[in-house]
Amino acid sequence: MDFAPSERTRELTERLKRFMREEVFPAEAVYASLLTGGADHTQWRQPVVMEQLKARARDAGLWNLFLPDLEGGAGLSNADYAPLAEIMGHSFIAPEVFNCNAPDTGNMEVLHRYGSPEQREHWLEPLLRGEIRSGFAMTEPDVASSDATNMQATATIDGDDIVLNGRKWWTTGLGHPHCRFVIFMGLSDANAEPHRRHSMVICPLDTPGVHVERMLPVFHDYDEPSGHGELRFDQVRVPASNVILGTGRGFEIAQGRLGPGRVHHCMRALGAAERALSLLCRRAQARVAFGQPLIKLGGNADIIANLRMAIEQARLLTLKAAWTLDTQGSKAALSLISQIKVVVPAVAQQAADAAIQIHGGAGLTDDFPLAQLYAYARVLRLADGPDEVHRAVVAKLEAKAQLATENHA
Amino acid sequence: MDFAPSERTRELTERLKRFMREEVFPAEAVYASLLTGGADHTQWRQPVVMEQLKARARDAGLWNLFLPDLEGGAGLSNADYAPLAEIMGHSFIAPEVFNCNAPDTGNMEVLHRYGSPEQREHWLEPLLRGEIRSGFAMTEPDVASSDATNMQATATIDGDDIVLNGRKWWTTGLGHPHCRFVIFMGLSDANAEPHRRHSMVICPLDTPGVHVERMLPVFHDYDEPSGHGELRFDQVRVPASNVILGTGRGFEIAQGRLGPGRVHHCMRALGAAERALSLLCRRAQARVAFGQPLIKLGGNADIIANLRMAIEQARLLTLKAAWTLDTQGSKAALSLISQIKVVVPAVAQQAADAAIQIHGGAGLTDDFPLAQLYAYARVLRLADGPDEVHRAVVAKLEAKAQLATENHA
Amino acid sequence: MDFAPSERTRELTERLKRFMREEVFPAEAVYASLLTGGADHTQWRQPVVMEQLKARARDAGLWNLFLPDLEGGAGLSNADYAPLAEIMGHSFIAPEVFNCNAPDTGNMEVLHRYGSPEQREHWLEPLLRGEIRSGFAMTEPDVASSDATNMQATATIDGDDIVLNGRKWWTTGLGHPHCRFVIFMGLSDANAEPHRRHSMVICPLDTPGVHVERMLPVFHDYDEPSGHGELRFDQVRVPASNVILGTGRGFEIAQGRLGPGRVHHCMRALGAAERALSLLCRRAQARVAFGQPLIKLGGNADIIANLRMAIEQARLLTLKAAWTLDTQGSKAALSLISQIKVVVPAVAQQAADAAIQIHGGAGLTDDFPLAQLYAYARVLRLADGPDEVHRAVVAKLEAKAQLATENHA
Amino acid sequence: MDFAPSERTRELTERLKRFMREEVFPAEAVYASLLTGGADHTQWRQPVVMEQLKARARDAGLWNLFLPDLEGGAGLSNADYAPLAEIMGHSFIAPEVFNCNAPDTGNMEVLHRYGSPEQREHWLEPLLRGEIRSGFAMTEPDVASSDATNMQATATIDGDDIVLNGRKWWTTGLGHPHCRFVIFMGLSDANAEPHRRHSMVICPLDTPGVHVERMLPVFHDYDEPSGHGELRFDQVRVPASNVILGTGRGFEIAQGRLGPGRVHHCMRALGAAERALSLLCRRAQARVAFGQPLIKLGGNADIIANLRMAIEQARLLTLKAAWTLDTQGSKAALSLISQIKVVVPAVAQQAADAAIQIHGGAGLTDDFPLAQLYAYARVLRLADGPDEVHRAVVAKLEAKAQLATENHA
Repeated sequence: MDFAPSERTRELTERLKRFMREEVFPAEAVYASLLTGGADHTQWRQPVVMEQLKARARDAGLWNLFLPDLEGGAGLSNADYAPLAEIMGHSFIAPEVFNCNAPDTGNMEVLHRYGSPEQREHWLEPLLRGEIRSGFAMTEPDVASSDATNMQATATIDGDDIVLNGRKWWTTGLGHPHCRFVIFMGLSDANAEPHRRHSMVICPLDTPGVHVERMLPVFHDYDEPSGHGELRFDQVRVPASNVILGTGRGFEIAQGRLGPGRVHHCMRALGAAERALSLLCRRAQARVAFGQPLIKLGGNADIIANLRMAIEQARLLTLKAAWTLDTQGSKAALSLISQIKVVVPAVAQQAADAAIQIHGGAGLTDDFPLAQLYAYARVLRLADGPDEVHRAVVAKLEAKAQLATENHA
Repeated sequence: MDFAPSERTRELTERLKRFMREEVFPAEAVYASLLTGGADHTQWRQPVVMEQLKARARDAGLWNLFLPDLEGGAGLSNADYAPLAEIMGHSFIAPEVFNCNAPDTGNMEVLHRYGSPEQREHWLEPLLRGEIRSGFAMTEPDVASSDATNMQATATIDGDDIVLNGRKWWTTGLGHPHCRFVIFMGLSDANAEPHRRHSMVICPLDTPGVHVERMLPVFHDYDEPSGHGELRFDQVRVPASNVILGTGRGFEIAQGRLGPGRVHHCMRALGAAERALSLLCRRAQARVAFGQPLIKLGGNADIIANLRMAIEQARLLTLKAAWTLDTQGSKAALSLISQIKVVVPAVAQQAADAAIQIHGGAGLTDDFPLAQLYAYARVLRLADGPDEVHRAVVAKLEAKAQLATENHA
Repeated sequence: MDFAPSERTRELTERLKRFMREEVFPAEAVYASLLTGGADHTQWRQPVVMEQLKARARDAGLWNLFLPDLEGGAGLSNADYAPLAEIMGHSFIAPEVFNCNAPDTGNMEVLHRYGSPEQREHWLEPLLRGEIRSGFAMTEPDVASSDATNMQATATIDGDDIVLNGRKWWTTGLGHPHCRFVIFMGLSDANAEPHRRHSMVICPLDTPGVHVERMLPVFHDYDEPSGHGELRFDQVRVPASNVILGTGRGFEIAQGRLGPGRVHHCMRALGAAERALSLLCRRAQARVAFGQPLIKLGGNADIIANLRMAIEQARLLTLKAAWTLDTQGSKAALSLISQIKVVVPAVAQQAADAAIQIHGGAGLTDDFPLAQLYAYARVLRLADGPDEVHRAVVAKLEAKAQLATENHA
Repeated sequence: MDFAPSERTRELTERLKRFMREEVFPAEAVYASLLTGGADHTQWRQPVVMEQLKARARDAGLWNLFLPDLEGGAGLSNADYAPLAEIMGHSFIAPEVFNCNAPDTGNMEVLHRYGSPEQREHWLEPLLRGEIRSGFAMTEPDVASSDATNMQATATIDGDDIVLNGRKWWTTGLGHPHCRFVIFMGLSDANAEPHRRHSMVICPLDTPGVHVERMLPVFHDYDEPSGHGELRFDQVRVPASNVILGTGRGFEIAQGRLGPGRVHHCMRALGAAERALSLLCRRAQARVAFGQPLIKLGGNADIIANLRMAIEQARLLTLKAAWTLDTQGSKAALSLISQIKVVVPAVAQQAADAAIQIHGGAGLTDDFPLAQLYAYARVLRLADGPDEVHRAVVAKLEAKAQLATENHA
């Protein structure tokens, strides 16, 4: 057993932290000042400072660290990358700076692993260079998408084409000015067995019949210039060669995609939780009421201790999930991945809420990043499967494992 | 002991519910469509439909129900009014419809009880008629306002005038196009004993030196067209006759104002909690995943039961606080008032969070009022004293009471 | 709405409190010293002091206060009796002192309401006089008794007799030297509709075939000299006239018995919670660590505040359940009765646990009544239906009620 | 980073598990049947089966695994031993079987590290051979021992002797028939700086003036034949050579002793938690109510999932604490050690409580080990420092660490 990060991770950690300190945090305010806000995403612009930061990160070799392959990526395992993802999670603008932002990382992994040479050349390469962005269109407004087999949008082979129809939403990144395509998941064979019914299809956003209906606010925030969008596909026709891996193989791809993606999400969320705790601690020591710094009052010290313990545990669990994914594969990591998807967002939400409380009214405004951290954590309790579904997975696997074990007595 | 509401309350409940059903709920969408949103409150407009609803409510005799006096009000006790406030709490637009919205209700009570005849004629009368609105300027950005004696803004007598200086924020309603004045609380005698140092002063917003610095977002929502504002007072000079009750009597007034105000807030928040629970139950029964309505899955039924129990208990506690205020006065109600300020916002936050979760991503958007309900409950854990201060009050009174009691053994 | 207790309750409260102070609390230590403890209930003796206290309570007119009838009882409604039950709950020995202990109160109510004249004369009268005690034999070891229709023990009419077979446990009071009979609930017609299958039968303990298998410890405590017992019924033959109300009417009786019984249990448990909180507050103010009384350290004051709020709310809920039972009947009170069965034992358990913690190791020993209070509360989360069953009832009734209500929008 | 146990641990895990399965679990019932119970520890006997198991464990090389030294121990680091301690924690009788039970392990470590050659020969050797047992006398009944500097018992040098006076309690193992001595911690120089005032002294139980006042029940359980005892020291005179390391060095020793001791405690408690979860899962799948196994009802599956996540996280935290202790020493591990002392007992208590609930009344009796597991976890929230003290340590170190870090912005 060894809790120390690898030499490679240690070295990258140092460089990444320095870059965050010297480049990213100082740029947050400028970036924010360049956003115009609002529901109309057609007015959204990429702040210039982001492209400058991206160029510097790339020059610094802090680029595509998420990709476990040396070709195009940094060759890091999930366990090696995880601590780096956490560091990026301290700032909302950081993941894009390092080309490590969702959902593009997931899409890049999909194309890297399962894409045809043409798909990789046409879509993966520019993503890896950070020139374009992409979305993932799976969740649907009209059904409980927590049960993925509920998906009703269709992807129907018609000669050399595949025709897409239906409505999707919560396509993250859809509003970004650089977003060029989405990976669409749809029903292609209603008669196959449940996990062989759906296909993943690359769909460029400029294909006729693709309608961006609106951007979705989260607690009134549109997360400009990335956003979460709602899409309507109306007889959208793309070449059948846009199908990834083959029709009916959507869930197979999803399984491979979701494990690492959830680890990344969770590590970034832990970074967010740490930032909230850090702000909380500073405020609790700086602000005075009734003649004492807040940290000396009531249960405030306990709140700090409880968060430290919760975050530390959640991090260890996430690292173990990453390590299990690396060493034993996704099936062995199934329960752990579901566990972190329940545990981590809850911890991050709790940290943000506690930090808001200690900041008083200021915590609810944009004077601090806490409301945004809160919203991020809150979304994550629903995205990539709600808590409820993951708890059910954990319980089911646990019950099964217990029955397989000999009894004590 | 009798848990039945009074005849008067029962009758008003029926009429109020009908008005909500027939007039208020159907108008919510129209009202929302007339808002333009955004941080710039100078662009905010009062939706026409609101003035229409107000006229109808007034005609229906559902007006100023909060005021415990028959002259101008409905002559209801706190306990009698409480269930009506809860009903109004089901819709964000309802309190203003019935001229029962914060902070105007509190301001009207202050002026009604403590205002001079001139103050009442000039400021109370138009408030009672619903022609103008007002704010309350107490919390300050630069100090932990949870400790009210921290307040640093000054109100200095200078001849026949009183001069106001300092910064205030979280002045609710400041952005409203009809807002005409604020009640400013400031330090007038730094050498008096702590609770005799501050004064309340009526300050018209058009007085030179009053600067509305900005409106404050809560989870990115500006709560248009009412809002919470930040104010700067720069050598603001008003006649000394604008002081309410007398210099140094600010805390004395605050004590009288806060008890009923907190009961109102809590009852409205319970209405909000009920609306969240109602939406949760409907969704849980209508939405299907894994072949079952959500209510049949996992711990969802438990969530409903837990909320029902928590809301029911919080309501009884609030009603008891109201009744104690009515029958034994504010000192006797001190602990109960602090108790409800801790319990009720927490329940409402919990209800809104649970309802969001069961709605999936939709719960975070504006398609449902849940994100707004959530933000409202969250603010209330800070407004009128944060949880921490109220818990400390409850503990202190409890410890004292226990020592005053004979021991068991 | 009126939260004040009735004149009658107020007067009885005063007298009861004085009696507790002057007679009951001082006798606790003597009583405890007369117990010999241990698993072998045949060695258990009724402490002499208990009979002395009973005589004094009877002389003082503090006797059978639970019985809502003037004949034999005090003629108090559930709401009137509830605050008195709470006072009794402060001491483990008190309920028996006033002849208000479970399960005898429930059995007396059953016989009072549903017993034949012979049954009342033979069994009810001596119970009302406090001469004998009784048990209730419903729960079974071999099935999940949370689902009462699972009950497998049989009560079979055979000519003029009824023959009882099967195993029962958790028959409270079975070990008491004065225990003379149990009310046995068994399956008498497996083909009837589910709630018409079972009968209640009076079974004297000296009937051949009744075997007391053992007494059951709760956290190693046998609760001498009352206890909870396990029984085996082996071809036990009693006259058919021992059936209460008629065969197949067991659930009908149970419904009537359980509402008031649960209110009594909950009010006593609130008394237990108050005692725990009282001990906690005294210790927190008397004990010093790190130079301060414990109440000043960390979150201890918050713990006190949280308990005060939780107990106060749970009490109001219980009083409302009692009042609803009185004014609208058991069907209307169904949800509230289930609510208090979930809420109150949890609060009492929480209070006892917190009090133990603040007492340090001493809290776990017999030096304080806390371990016993804890065990009492813990049992109550299972007795008369586990939390889970009651939560399910609350959720089901809530979901139904919501569907019956018009929608908001 | 590597979550895999070492080769050595893996091999020992296999052998230990087999020994538990083949020898320990089957012996539990025999062992229990040989206990006579009760408060009078002079009647307690060591069950024969225990000595048989010890002999077999020793023969199997599963002996003194806790001792990090190869001489006398197994040469395992804390991180290597931790998983083995967890396995032992599955059965209450196991730790003694392997000579790895508290408080003897701690005492052996103290004597091993700090004892003089004579002390080691006379007291350590027989302990290592499992021939005698020992106690640790630190906590005092008359002061809040959560603040260790409160300790008032005295250890006064008088010529060649040291004289012990005062009262101690919660001396675990004191009732054991093999218990021969305690390590007494007392005030030897009231004028020294706070952490140099106390000394540790070896005190044989047969020294004149040592009085075992009573054994202390935990939830009515005396934990025979080990127990927790209360001691009075009345002018107890032992040779000054019985002082360990030197006068005034008690806290110095305690610091070294407590880190590994807490890791052991926590790992055993995790074993207890796993046993509770295992029993819970089996019962939930075997028991049927309302036509379904309990695991399908209400929130029961969620309870299982939540426990799995909590236990897994607590284990990782404990392993990291062990690893930090091994690789960076006790000062670096300070916060982590306090964290596990808060987290692990709470998880174990929660697991035992949940398992009790799903077992219904049976869970409270001795038919299952759950009440005992519960009591064990509950004690641990107080032993070796109550939760409150450890939370304060974590908060203090966190606040300090945050101030030492550069700010984000």
